[in-house]
Amino acid sequence: MSLPDPLTRLIEELQRLPGIGPKGAQRLAFHMLRTPREQTERLVDALRDMKERVTYCSVCNNITIVDPCAFCTGDGRDATIICVVEEPQNVSAIEKSRDFKGTYHVLMGALSPLQGIGPDDLKIKGLLARVNNGVSEVILATNPNVEGEATAIYLARLLKPLGVKVTRIAMGVPVGSDLEYADEVTMHKALEGRREV
Amino acid sequence: MSLPDPLTRLIEELQRLPGIGPKGAQRLAFHMLRTPREQTERLVDALRDMKERVTYCSVCNNITIVDPCAFCTGDGRDATIICVVEEPQNVSAIEKSRDFKGTYHVLMGALSPLQGIGPDDLKIKGLLARVNNGVSEVILATNPNVEGEATAIYLARLLKPLGVKVTRIAMGVPVGSDLEYADEVTMHKALEGRREV
Repeated sequence: MSLPDPLTRLIEELQRLPGIGPKGAQRLAFHMLRTPREQTERLVDALRDMKERVTYCSVCNNITIVDPCAFCTGDGRDATIICVVEEPQNVSAIEKSRDFKGTYHVLMGALSPLQGIGPDDLKIKGLLARVNNGVSEVILATNPNVEGEATAIYLARLLKPLGVKVTRIAMGVPVGSDLEYADEVTMHKALEGRREV
Repeated sequence: MSLPDPLTRLIEELQRLPGIGPKGAQRLAFHMLRTPREQTERLVDALRDMKERVTYCSVCNNITIVDPCAFCTGDGRDATIICVVEEPQNVSAIEKSRDFKGTYHVLMGALSPLQGIGPDDLKIKGLLARVNNGVSEVILATNPNVEGEATAIYLARLLKPLGVKVTRIAMGVPVGSDLEYADEVTMHKALEGRREV
């Protein structure tokens, strides 16, 4: 005799989520069984409301509830600088630094031949159109891994002929870390990118 | 500029779930943003259906969709043996061994003075009533930790005067493990419980 069907079905659905395995899904389902109905309804409402209201900006592809998004229409933002990132969540990572006052462009992924993701699968056309419209600098802030690096090189080749300044975010040892734990590629980048003090 | 409100709200609700921290909740929320609406609706349906239909058995407190549950009404189950466990999920763990053909009693917790859980917070009264009704053996299968052990000792003292046979599941080194990794308490239990071959 196994678990009741409705519980098995919930466990199956929870397992589809990233980072949740069979044991984790079972633990979550039993937790949801115990919690008051109001709490699970709040989760359901939040999920539905998010699916209903959150869309992508037609200019920069960032997530937003009004289109175009606040970055693309914002007063304090410099529309002549575009920071290119892979995913919407990268935008909040950059915003946290409070340094950047330009606009964004979300590619919705990175080039990955292994996963069959080519240039046509990314939002590159819109970026080129924006750059042709009076942009002075494009900062390539794709991830510091193989796919992100390949995407940055690809974009740099496309953008430079348009006469725009193209930069790449610095790679090096992260602040607060210990040199002992830096891998050789990071250390190489840190030495290569050294600056006079 | 931070994340859209509906997304922030979903992240907050997801963070209430056990084992999901701020980073994990954000990753889940962005995943749910990307997945087709049908898939999130399937999750919502599964969750609501589970909350609607799954209840607790009025006899043994196990989860069920029909009350009393299939264990309490089942033909092939020996009602004279009761296996006492802490939580409904422990029932499926025992069922997996396919060894046990008796019935269950779920306590809905374990004694824990630190967390303020006393005997009145557990489903003990129902157990005593069942034992008084022609039961030959009670197997105490509470967890092999401090709370579970205390609960087992407490129950044994209550049950023995009723003239019923009270047993505790064996503790020792888990099958398939390596002696090297066994902690001293487990090793002590394994030696203490040794049997002639």
